[in-house]
Amino acid sequence: MATINANFLKLKAGYLFPEIGRRVKAYTEANPDKAARIIRCGIGDVTEALPPAIVKAMHEGVDELAHRETFHGYGPEQGYEFLRQAIVDNQFADLGISADEVFISDGSKCDTGNILDIFGKGNTIAITDPVYPVYVDTNVMAGNTGDADAKGAYEGLLYLPCNAENGFVADVPTEKADLIYLCFPNNPTGSVATRAQLEAWVAYAKANDAIILFDAAYEAFIQDPEIPHSIFEIEGAKDCCIEFRSFSKNGGFTGVRCAYVVIPKTVTGKTETGERIPLHQLWSRRHSTKFNGASYPVQKAAAAVFSEEGKAQVNELIEHYMGNAKLLIEAATAAGLQVFGGKNAPYVWVGCPKGLSSWDMFDKMLQEAQVVITPGSGFGSAGEGYFRISAFNSRANVEEVCNRLKALIA
Amino acid sequence: MATINANFLKLKAGYLFPEIGRRVKAYTEANPDKAARIIRCGIGDVTEALPPAIVKAMHEGVDELAHRETFHGYGPEQGYEFLRQAIVDNQFADLGISADEVFISDGSKCDTGNILDIFGKGNTIAITDPVYPVYVDTNVMAGNTGDADAKGAYEGLLYLPCNAENGFVADVPTEKADLIYLCFPNNPTGSVATRAQLEAWVAYAKANDAIILFDAAYEAFIQDPEIPHSIFEIEGAKDCCIEFRSFSKNGGFTGVRCAYVVIPKTVTGKTETGERIPLHQLWSRRHSTKFNGASYPVQKAAAAVFSEEGKAQVNELIEHYMGNAKLLIEAATAAGLQVFGGKNAPYVWVGCPKGLSSWDMFDKMLQEAQVVITPGSGFGSAGEGYFRISAFNSRANVEEVCNRLKALIA
Repeated sequence: MATINANFLKLKAGYLFPEIGRRVKAYTEANPDKAARIIRCGIGDVTEALPPAIVKAMHEGVDELAHRETFHGYGPEQGYEFLRQAIVDNQFADLGISADEVFISDGSKCDTGNILDIFGKGNTIAITDPVYPVYVDTNVMAGNTGDADAKGAYEGLLYLPCNAENGFVADVPTEKADLIYLCFPNNPTGSVATRAQLEAWVAYAKANDAIILFDAAYEAFIQDPEIPHSIFEIEGAKDCCIEFRSFSKNGGFTGVRCAYVVIPKTVTGKTETGERIPLHQLWSRRHSTKFNGASYPVQKAAAAVFSEEGKAQVNELIEHYMGNAKLLIEAATAAGLQVFGGKNAPYVWVGCPKGLSSWDMFDKMLQEAQVVITPGSGFGSAGEGYFRISAFNSRANVEEVCNRLKALIA
Repeated sequence: MATINANFLKLKAGYLFPEIGRRVKAYTEANPDKAARIIRCGIGDVTEALPPAIVKAMHEGVDELAHRETFHGYGPEQGYEFLRQAIVDNQFADLGISADEVFISDGSKCDTGNILDIFGKGNTIAITDPVYPVYVDTNVMAGNTGDADAKGAYEGLLYLPCNAENGFVADVPTEKADLIYLCFPNNPTGSVATRAQLEAWVAYAKANDAIILFDAAYEAFIQDPEIPHSIFEIEGAKDCCIEFRSFSKNGGFTGVRCAYVVIPKTVTGKTETGERIPLHQLWSRRHSTKFNGASYPVQKAAAAVFSEEGKAQVNELIEHYMGNAKLLIEAATAAGLQVFGGKNAPYVWVGCPKGLSSWDMFDKMLQEAQVVITPGSGFGSAGEGYFRISAFNSRANVEEVCNRLKALIA
C-alpha cells in the first residue's frame, strides 16, 4: 500500500493567491459588465515589458540553439559561469562571495521551498507574521509543524509578530530558533530592516547556532542608501546565512523564470552527533541531483540585466514602479488610512478602514471599486486589519486606483 | 542548533556524470594534445540544433514579452492551457487523459525527484538495477533507505535485477513494493517493455495497492508499432500510474528545459489510517506551492513540437539519432561485443570485452580511443560488465566512434 505524505492534509484550503483568483472569477462571472473595469493590484506580478537589452540577449540565446555549432544542451546544474560571475561582480562586489557560492535556479519560490531538503527534522522554525505563505506551507509539507489552529497558526512554528509598534520588523526573540526566515524589503509589508536590526539578527543566529534564510527578492527597490541590500553586508553573516535573490522583480522575469541562492562555503549545519557539514556541499548535491540547470536563453537574458544598457533599463523600471508606490502612499494617506511600506519596496501596506477585516476590505474593493488587493490576513493572523497594494502596474492604472480608493473611503 | 538532513551523507561520492566529467578533465589536462580528438557519447545529451519551428515559436514568445500589451508575468503553475491541451491531443488522444491531469515543469529530473514530496515514509521502493541514478539518490535524500553496502546497494530498496536473461526488463517481483520506478524505453539499457510485460506490472500494482512511476522520457524513439508509448495504454493504469514525459530528447530541449507529469485524478494513495487521497490533489498543491510555472517562451516552444512543421522536424531528428544507433549496434557487433538496446531507444548497451570492468572499459575508451562512454556499473551493480553508448551525436562523430571502437577491440 503506497502511503501519502499526510502533512499535506494539514494545509489550509488553498494557497492565498488561488483563493483571490477564485473570488475575482466569481465576481466577474456574476458581473460581466464590470469585468473590464477590474484593476489587479493583488499578486505581486510585474506588468511592464521586458527591457530591450534583455529581450535582445534572450533572442541571441535562442539563435545559438538554432545552430549545431553554437547549440547548448545540458548546462551546469549550478548555472553558467558567465551568469554566476556577473552576479558576483555586480551584486556582491567587495562582500567576499565567490561565483561558485552562487546557484542559479528557475525561481525563488522553488529555492525557498526546496531549501528544506537539506535540513533535518526537529529544527525550530521561526517565521515572521505576516509572512510570504510559501515559507509556512513548505514547512507544513515537510512535517516541521503540527496542525493549524482556528486562526491558521501552525503548532510548532515560532511566530515573530510584526506590527505597527515594531514597524513591521520582527524583534529578535527570547526563544531559541534554528532556522529563521527573514525577507527584506519585506513581502507583504514593504518594511526594510536597518543595518543595526540585521546585525542583531546575525548575532542572534551566531549565538544560537541558527541559520538565517534571507529573502532579498526585492533588494533592487531599496532607495535609502543606509539600508543593506544583502545580508552579507553584515559582519559574521557568512557563517550563518543563506540569501535568496531573483530576477523576477528587477528584470521583470516573473514569466521568464530565473533566480539564485547564495550559500557561502563557511555556513554549516550540524548532524545529530554534532559534526559540522557545509550547507554549500548539501545544496550542491541537491541541486545536481534534483535540478538540471535553468534554461540557457533565460540565463543569457539574466546576464543582460548586468550589461550597461540592461542596468539603465532595469533602473527605469524600478523608478516607474516606485513612482507608482509614491502615488499609492499619497492616495491612501489622503483617504485617511494608516500607511506603511512603499518607500523601499513595491508594496504598500495599508490599515483597513475601521471595523473592516482584511477580507471585508478585499471584497469591498473588488465589488465597489473593482480593484483587486491582497488581504493582509492571507499572510498570517498578524496581517488581519491590513491590506497590501502592489505598485506593479501601469501609471494610468495606478492613478485610477488612487482615484477609486479615495472615492471609496471618502 | 540547525541540524542537517543527514540522509545526504549516505550518498556515494559524486553523482555518476560529475565523476565522468572529472575523469575526462583529468585526462585532457594530462594530455592536452588529445583534447581535440575526444568524442563524447557519455551523458545522454542531444547534440543537434533545435528544429526551426521550435526556434521560431520561442522567438515569438520572447517578442510577446517585449511589449506591455502581450507581456506575460506569472503563468499558471501547472502550465498554460495551450500546452497542456496540445499534449493531450497529440500524445494521449483516446487514452482518456484530460488537460488538467497534465502538469508542465522545467524538467523530468526535477519531476522524478520532487514526486517523493507527496509520498509518506515507510513505503517499499522498487527500482530496477541498472537504473537512472536520480531515482535512487532522491530516495536516499528523502530518508527512504538505509546505508549503502560495499557494492553501492542501499539497504531498504527492493532492487529488481535486469540482465541478459530477462532482456533487461525486470520481472514482477514476489515481494511487495509500494512505489515502483519503471523507465521504458530504458535508460541506460535501451530495452523496451512489451504490452504483456506492462500489463503484468499494472496487475502487480493493482494487486499490491502500489504506484508505478513510469518514466517515458524516450518514448519518441520507439520504432516497433507493438510497443506501448504510454503506460496509460494499459487497462487499469489510470488507477495506479504516474507518467513522466519530457521535451528533452524529442524536441532537443536539454538546454531549453520543459517536461511534464501526467497524474490521472483516479490514482490514489492512502493515509496511515487507510483514507484514500488522490495524488493529483497532492501534486497540484505541491506544484503551486513550490514551483512557479515553466518559462513562457519555453512553453511556446514546447507547443511548437506539436505543430505540423514541428512534428516533421522532430521526426527527422529522431531518425537521425536512430540512424546513429544502428551504426553503433553494427560496429559493436562487428567488434565481437554483446549488444542490447538501440532499436527503440537512443542508447546502445554493450557488454565489456572479457576481463574488463565497466570503469576499466571507460578508461580504456577514453585513454586509447578518446571516446567518452558511460560505465554500466555507474547505474547500479547489475550494470557491471556493460557500458552505454549514446546515439546523440553527429553522423560524422558516430562513424568515427564506430571506427575507433572496431580498431580498439579488434
